[in-house]
Amino acid sequence: MTADDPHEISRRGLMLVLSSPSGAGKTTISREILSRDANLHMSVSATTRPKRPGEVEGRDYFFTAEEDFHLMANRRELLEHATVFGHLYGTPRKPVEEALAAGRDVLFDIDWQGTQQLREAARADLVSVFILPPSVPELERRLKSRAQDSAEVVARRMAQASDEMSHWPEYDYIVVNREIAGSVAEVQAILTAERLRRERQVGLGDFVRFLREG
Amino acid sequence: MTADDPHEISRRGLMLVLSSPSGAGKTTISREILSRDANLHMSVSATTRPKRPGEVEGRDYFFTAEEDFHLMANRRELLEHATVFGHLYGTPRKPVEEALAAGRDVLFDIDWQGTQQLREAARADLVSVFILPPSVPELERRLKSRAQDSAEVVARRMAQASDEMSHWPEYDYIVVNREIAGSVAEVQAILTAERLRRERQVGLGDFVRFLREG
Repeated sequence: MTADDPHEISRRGLMLVLSSPSGAGKTTISREILSRDANLHMSVSATTRPKRPGEVEGRDYFFTAEEDFHLMANRRELLEHATVFGHLYGTPRKPVEEALAAGRDVLFDIDWQGTQQLREAARADLVSVFILPPSVPELERRLKSRAQDSAEVVARRMAQASDEMSHWPEYDYIVVNREIAGSVAEVQAILTAERLRRERQVGLGDFVRFLREG
Repeated sequence: MTADDPHEISRRGLMLVLSSPSGAGKTTISREILSRDANLHMSVSATTRPKRPGEVEGRDYFFTAEEDFHLMANRRELLEHATVFGHLYGTPRKPVEEALAAGRDVLFDIDWQGTQQLREAARADLVSVFILPPSVPELERRLKSRAQDSAEVVARRMAQASDEMSHWPEYDYIVVNREIAGSVAEVQAILTAERLRRERQVGLGDFVRFLREG
């Protein structure tokens, strides 16, 4: 904005959700777009799981006592929450709300159930992307190469992947991850475009009024 | 798609509308994105205006007798139409419909009134972008530099620009054209993102069914 135009257009941040079956490449894509976009930050979850060596409070998780977690949930201070292997995980509303108000975008790496809860909590701010593997043999190859897992474990993961994939119709955008570079560029384009949506650009009314009054 | 996956995902084309006050840079942006994107084509209008030397039927316009134009309008074969300096201009529905069905995208360089008619005729296929100038002095400079026009003509154009700008709230995306390269990249990102919208990717259901059945 030049000195002639004191009317800044600011922007409300958005919540970018990436979901996919495991093995579709979501983690790599998340890491790549985070490293390329200084305005995008990973959402930090609250959890009742014990802190592991090297983990930092507020960076990796907000480590929370179970009693406090339930209190937060009851007060609707969590945008979504779930139980995984006996531990509670959830997204505190306040830091996300502060980021959005300051024009920062927040990335969520969550499954279809978490996405459904986020959608109910914050419909207008949500941009949801579902990442699909390009083919079944490729998905199987990625799941197998991940670890020296038994055939049984791979079969269970394939079944889970199949379940997760059935939820593609609930997402705004679908990216088929044929190769990482192309998929990263596609998710970046989604982010760029969604930032330009009229309703996210705060102060446009003042800006145009200023332009029209000359 | 590999030989393992015979299920092609095809895509329904989209209608990309660029509107702006004259002097905001829309024509340059249109030319740039058309030259960079082989799947995007300029919409060809029907007109009752006489053919000028060098103009080609079906490339520049569909040159149409006034009687035929009215017939097309009455049969609802035009997506939008308007009268400009006593001549009729309109967008024939059929070539656009054929392009969209074949997965080709169509670019429209039209004003807010044309956009309103397109929206009524084809809501789901429409992606609308409004381009704003960065400032009033810059808009005035661009309008003045365009031709050796009188102060009066420039003043009239500024008034028209102001009118056109009042319609920004009717558009999906707003691009402030601070410099051409950035604005071209932004419109390209909008195009890339909109192509990835779930509802435009035809055959995704079959593709996922195939993935899930393994």
